[in-house]
Amino acid sequence: MQISRVVSDLVTTKRVSSLANRSLRVVEDHRGNYDVVVDPVGAKPGDYVITIGYSAARAAAGNPSITTDLTIGGIIDHWDEECWRT
Amino acid sequence: MQISRVVSDLVTTKRVSSLANRSLRVVEDHRGNYDVVVDPVGAKPGDYVITIGYSAARAAAGNPSITTDLTIGGIIDHWDEECWRT
Amino acid sequence: MQISRVVSDLVTTKRVSSLANRSLRVVEDHRGNYDVVVDPVGAKPGDYVITIGYSAARAAAGNPSITTDLTIGGIIDHWDEECWRT
Amino acid sequence: MQISRVVSDLVTTKRVSSLANRSLRVVEDHRGNYDVVVDPVGAKPGDYVITIGYSAARAAAGNPSITTDLTIGGIIDHWDEECWRT
Amino acid sequence: MQISRVVSDLVTTKRVSSLANRSLRVVEDHRGNYDVVVDPVGAKPGDYVITIGYSAARAAAGNPSITTDLTIGGIIDHWDEECWRT
Repeated sequence: MQISRVVSDLVTTKRVSSLANRSLRVVEDHRGNYDVVVDPVGAKPGDYVITIGYSAARAAAGNPSITTDLTIGGIIDHWDEECWRT
Repeated sequence: MQISRVVSDLVTTKRVSSLANRSLRVVEDHRGNYDVVVDPVGAKPGDYVITIGYSAARAAAGNPSITTDLTIGGIIDHWDEECWRT
Repeated sequence: MQISRVVSDLVTTKRVSSLANRSLRVVEDHRGNYDVVVDPVGAKPGDYVITIGYSAARAAAGNPSITTDLTIGGIIDHWDEECWRT
Repeated sequence: MQISRVVSDLVTTKRVSSLANRSLRVVEDHRGNYDVVVDPVGAKPGDYVITIGYSAARAAAGNPSITTDLTIGGIIDHWDEECWRT
Repeated sequence: MQISRVVSDLVTTKRVSSLANRSLRVVEDHRGNYDVVVDPVGAKPGDYVITIGYSAARAAAGNPSITTDLTIGGIIDHWDEECWRT
């Protein structure tokens, strides 16, 4: 699992039906790479989260038929911004 | 999931039967890396899309017997080109 | 599988139910990249461990319904710090 | 899926039985990284191909019990060498 | 699949039960990155091998309940050291 920071929501009106109406968010890792995740926990921009990838992402989304490959697994209680090295 | 931009179609007359006749497109990420995707949503060159990878890509293609590892999941409504850092 | 060093525990009070109450730890590879893992073996900060990724991570966690994509597989008996090149 | 160029055959007389007698080839991406693939389509050195990775690679090999993680999915009809950036 | 060179054995007395007593080895790719693999073919230090990753690694280990994500698939008969670029 990776540590990322929530950047913003992402709107995709035209999407595959297997993503249903799940909330998508853009997250950023400490190198500035963007990923798109399904968010089942209600994270807000600025929150540090852990992301779950690969086949586990579907079950983490609460329904294995949701075709995501990256899902927020939890919000980190405390994270030291200085831990992020560039 | 990743954010990519559609570049072009890709023709592979000689292909494995498990890809059937699905439309393939070349997409490019913000570092200029190319990937090849199955497109179930009808994206056009220049569209910004999200791509779904790994085992979820098969179900996102609408049929889990399609042997893709990367499928377009949706077209992004609004994406700021300036967000792409190099 | 990868070789990593345990850095610290990680607390995520708000998390998906599929992670249950499993212990999470931050590990670091020899390039200084952080990952978050489920720890079924009781590793301590400073231990060198092997990490198991992808779909095997769930079974390695002792229960395939745990939605992890990275799990500690074992503690390395002897590891030469000088083997870590940067 | 990735775009690669076929470099050569690869002989592994001593191999796991789950690879059976499938043809293996070395392919190279546009950064000069080598990968080893199962080839079910009969590509020749110099051909540009798409490669299918992860769990889809097994079904693309024509038999899901073949333990490959990368399989040629098709030969690209036309590919502009100048598209390869280094 | 990747091409790697066997470096050494790796001892992990304290390990998850799902790795059973399988032999683990450290392998190195041409960029000097280390990985840990299950070895079902009896490779020796210095041998060039192909490694099978992701979910196929479990079946390649001879038993899908072995929770490995990387397994040696075969020993390469001939490999030109000069092919390794850095």
